Amino acid sequence: MYRSHNCGELNASHINTEVTLAGWVQKSRDKGFMSWVDLRDRYGITQLIFDSERTDKTVFEKARTLGREFVIQVKGKVIERESKNPNMATGDIEILVSELNILNEALLPPFTIEDETDGGEELRMKYRYIDIRRNPVKNSLLFRHKVSMGVRNYLSEKGFCEIETPYLIKSTPEGARDFVVPSRMNPGQFYALPQSPQTFKQLLMVGGMDKYFQIVKCFRDEDLRADRQPEFTQIDCEMAFVEQEDILNVFEGLTRHLLKEIKGIDVAEFPRMTYDHAMKTYGNDKPDIRFGMEFGELNSVAQNKDFSVFNSAELVVGIAAPNCGEMTRKEIDALIEWVKRPQIGASGMVYVKCNTDGTFKSSVDKFYDQDDLQKWAEATGAKAGDMIFILSGNANKTRTQLSALRMELATRLGLRNPEVFAPLWVVDFPLLEFDEESGRYHAMHHPFTSPKPEDMHLLETDPGKVRANAYDMVLNGNEIGGGSIRIHDKETQALMFKYLGFTEEEARYQFGFLMDAFQFGAPPHGGLAFGLDRLVAILGGQETIRDFIAFPKNNSGRDVMIDAPSNINPAQLDELQIKLNVK
Amino acid sequence: MYRSHNCGELNASHINTEVTLAGWVQKSRDKGFMSWVDLRDRYGITQLIFDSERTDKTVFEKARTLGREFVIQVKGKVIERESKNPNMATGDIEILVSELNILNEALLPPFTIEDETDGGEELRMKYRYIDIRRNPVKNSLLFRHKVSMGVRNYLSEKGFCEIETPYLIKSTPEGARDFVVPSRMNPGQFYALPQSPQTFKQLLMVGGMDKYFQIVKCFRDEDLRADRQPEFTQIDCEMAFVEQEDILNVFEGLTRHLLKEIKGIDVAEFPRMTYDHAMKTYGNDKPDIRFGMEFGELNSVAQNKDFSVFNSAELVVGIAAPNCGEMTRKEIDALIEWVKRPQIGASGMVYVKCNTDGTFKSSVDKFYDQDDLQKWAEATGAKAGDMIFILSGNANKTRTQLSALRMELATRLGLRNPEVFAPLWVVDFPLLEFDEESGRYHAMHHPFTSPKPEDMHLLETDPGKVRANAYDMVLNGNEIGGGSIRIHDKETQALMFKYLGFTEEEARYQFGFLMDAFQFGAPPHGGLAFGLDRLVAILGGQETIRDFIAFPKNNSGRDVMIDAPSNINPAQLDELQIKLNVK
Repeated sequence: MYRSHNCGELNASHINTEVTLAGWVQKSRDKGFMSWVDLRDRYGITQLIFDSERTDKTVFEKARTLGREFVIQVKGKVIERESKNPNMATGDIEILVSELNILNEALLPPFTIEDETDGGEELRMKYRYIDIRRNPVKNSLLFRHKVSMGVRNYLSEKGFCEIETPYLIKSTPEGARDFVVPSRMNPGQFYALPQSPQTFKQLLMVGGMDKYFQIVKCFRDEDLRADRQPEFTQIDCEMAFVEQEDILNVFEGLTRHLLKEIKGIDVAEFPRMTYDHAMKTYGNDKPDIRFGMEFGELNSVAQNKDFSVFNSAELVVGIAAPNCGEMTRKEIDALIEWVKRPQIGASGMVYVKCNTDGTFKSSVDKFYDQDDLQKWAEATGAKAGDMIFILSGNANKTRTQLSALRMELATRLGLRNPEVFAPLWVVDFPLLEFDEESGRYHAMHHPFTSPKPEDMHLLETDPGKVRANAYDMVLNGNEIGGGSIRIHDKETQALMFKYLGFTEEEARYQFGFLMDAFQFGAPPHGGLAFGLDRLVAILGGQETIRDFIAFPKNNSGRDVMIDAPSNINPAQLDELQIKLNVK
Repeated sequence: MYRSHNCGELNASHINTEVTLAGWVQKSRDKGFMSWVDLRDRYGITQLIFDSERTDKTVFEKARTLGREFVIQVKGKVIERESKNPNMATGDIEILVSELNILNEALLPPFTIEDETDGGEELRMKYRYIDIRRNPVKNSLLFRHKVSMGVRNYLSEKGFCEIETPYLIKSTPEGARDFVVPSRMNPGQFYALPQSPQTFKQLLMVGGMDKYFQIVKCFRDEDLRADRQPEFTQIDCEMAFVEQEDILNVFEGLTRHLLKEIKGIDVAEFPRMTYDHAMKTYGNDKPDIRFGMEFGELNSVAQNKDFSVFNSAELVVGIAAPNCGEMTRKEIDALIEWVKRPQIGASGMVYVKCNTDGTFKSSVDKFYDQDDLQKWAEATGAKAGDMIFILSGNANKTRTQLSALRMELATRLGLRNPEVFAPLWVVDFPLLEFDEESGRYHAMHHPFTSPKPEDMHLLETDPGKVRANAYDMVLNGNEIGGGSIRIHDKETQALMFKYLGFTEEEARYQFGFLMDAFQFGAPPHGGLAFGLDRLVAILGGQETIRDFIAFPKNNSGRDVMIDAPSNINPAQLDELQIKLNVK
């Protein structure tokens, strides 16, 4: 037995107890006649004391040789501490050490094991096993476990069955790029790693397992953006004999349960917002509704004056930035430059100061009088002391630009409080979206998403207008989950494949087994998937997912700690009957 | 809302309730003026009744068009059943249907959806989504979920944290063959899929996460034997600041908890048996101890007579088959042929009948008298009415052969009752095993397993005798888990690599990151892994794992349902910068 207690649990009630502790040397202080060591483990820190009078001489001298991160075991008596530390759980006591055993020495760590470390991102990744000793990372992993268990227990109690679906599956050219795995036993052939268990969960519905879930790794070989990982974890769910409403209720219930159990937060019933409304009001299908700043469309009150920029625009739209009326000219110019950056792409921005005396001062006073500006203030909900920012141009692009500005301003104004949680459902997504590159429509969600029956007649005439039984759960400006009611009859599915430009043969090759399955009695079904990495990060009040993943990869998809991917043995290639073809 | 109740919950207390059910047509009977349909879902079967007098004519006629496995929704009233079926949960009632809605038609299923189906293995695999509708498969998947949740909740309560380790890792030529994944972003380089998270869990210990577990998929590209899968699931565990005893206690606790919670069975403290004892007594390092038939070594009582076969043998060893004294000559001959089959490989077998009158009749009466045979009976624990079977030859081979015979006889004698659970620990495994092919010692477990300190001095002189701090949990003749205390100091690790024939460079290339990590303060640690597929099957009283896996692969590693692996698009190969090289 290496320890009788851990380093986080001893307090005044243990005084005079003989204990054995083990852990890492966080730091030591040596005053000649006395020395102290902070001993750390997963559970906390306990102070050890070595005293030239009370400690055996050999032990006392050995203690002075301890370096940072040495692994040690000590025996000793819990005693009351002279200078108590009320900020530490163990701050009332210390251990007067009688035996000291060095279990392992340690090189000096490449960065400090402190909440605020001096280690940069790459260094921390390379020595991730040391980084995990730091509270922020350690606590993120413990938190993730808590969320995962919360999800599993909640869904299990609701009758869901977690079913493991295979990782070695079949490559389908639709969607994102697959990671593939050459098969040695079937030379020339490849498995693919799942981008999601989508078809398997639908097959489980055909199989009658009417409430399925799985916390499962998924894989996408995409060029990585910041905060994207080639492997990520999904809470994958599917239900049979349900309508959209049933699914929204179950997973709203799950999310409220997590917020309550883990964060102690009660949230009201989730608002439901159509995709169209979200786009018009927030310029975004994952609106952050922790704050207002809703879009005010100004076409009717800003066009048909002499300002040609607005007159020629498809959309003129503004937002009111609360209490920003005192912005200096310099600050405003900087903000105009910000929206004109290529990442945002606005060609300019109009502003209106709403003075506290009820008057307005705008950058377009030449074209608009106080009455006009008054109407703008009404449309954007601006109050005295606010500032209105207005963009114009192509409707979609302008909305996206204004959404970016809205989020930026909210961040600067401190309106995105990570401890406030504002979830909602965005519903009625379009079924199809037009892809400029291929010149045809693609499934916005995936080819199994069911169209709304009442919109079916538009498939021929105005496919972009067809709405789907598809929904996203949005939390604080992040899509944390999304799903749909699936097509469950083969006629509608065949129609969908046709509209998506699949030949019958292609559809057969890629989805034959699913289409076959649907002939044997598919129930109505639907589901959704949550991104666990993101969900955990947001619940944890963080913006980035990396600290919630034990061993993340960098932006080139490399694990810099183990140095993967790597070259493999020529004999391995030979066995797999493949050759490198590096250009 | 598709249903108000499921098909397994209605009983006499619901009589006169209006309900809505949905499910699959299990079967229908039509008597002209009346017809019945058994409606099935995940939860059970409910009988529907359509009656020419009480049912609307259109509904009545529609009911007669229903085929097997049609998906339907019905509304109706719960009524008392005339001929009750006490074997069904819903056997007291039936539903007088007022509305019938065909949700989906179905082709005739390729095999019957019954507990005993007429479908063969390959057909069931091809239509796995239909197979899952059958109770034996469905219940196996539900059972697996229950076991997994039991494991997770037990370990979480004990302070373990489930941590997801990466799937895209680094290929190491040691051990079994890796599945590899070409990296598009790092052309010419490959990830490997993990054979186990071994090194990651050790790094987590270095990181201070002192109680780790994970239920995780692992991958081995091996030629498949029956009941092996290229992807399988492991309950992977590791602890820091522990000795072997601590680990055995925790996971014995887990297993007892599962047996108690899931099977309602109390088992006593697990026996602990050394590897040497297991091999001598059962010829096997995973002995089935639900029954006796322990080996009796007969060298001292059977050698130095005139029977040259025994005299020249390294080992003469027998078992007593209980109550087999009445076996006919023909049965005995068949058994002798059985042990002589190439799979077993014995060159012959001696037998002794222990007559009920206390006399003996053997196949070697020419060489041995009744006193000799009496000693054999004592050594094998044979009683009057038993039969003793004796093999001889090379010690290791003979033990393996007799072990196979022991298991075969026990199966034939019905001594392997799947509802009896006899777990044990086998401990003190050898550290190394000699590999004839490469002419050198290999790690029996893996290169991180710690030798017993008291055996270290034998490493130079008699490496095969060095015991490891390694242990297996054995249940009913199956190894369900195994692990070891790891090496945690770099000196011992370097020594091990040396004895395993690694050059420093090779060790560095393959395990450099682990050796680096160990320099930064590795705590003493150890762990184990359970095979979940096997554990669940055994707890479920089954011999084969396949029905406990939702979508298993066949013996060529193929998923015959989705037809994977498959050819991939030449453009995909091109992007990955690899070429086929099929011979």
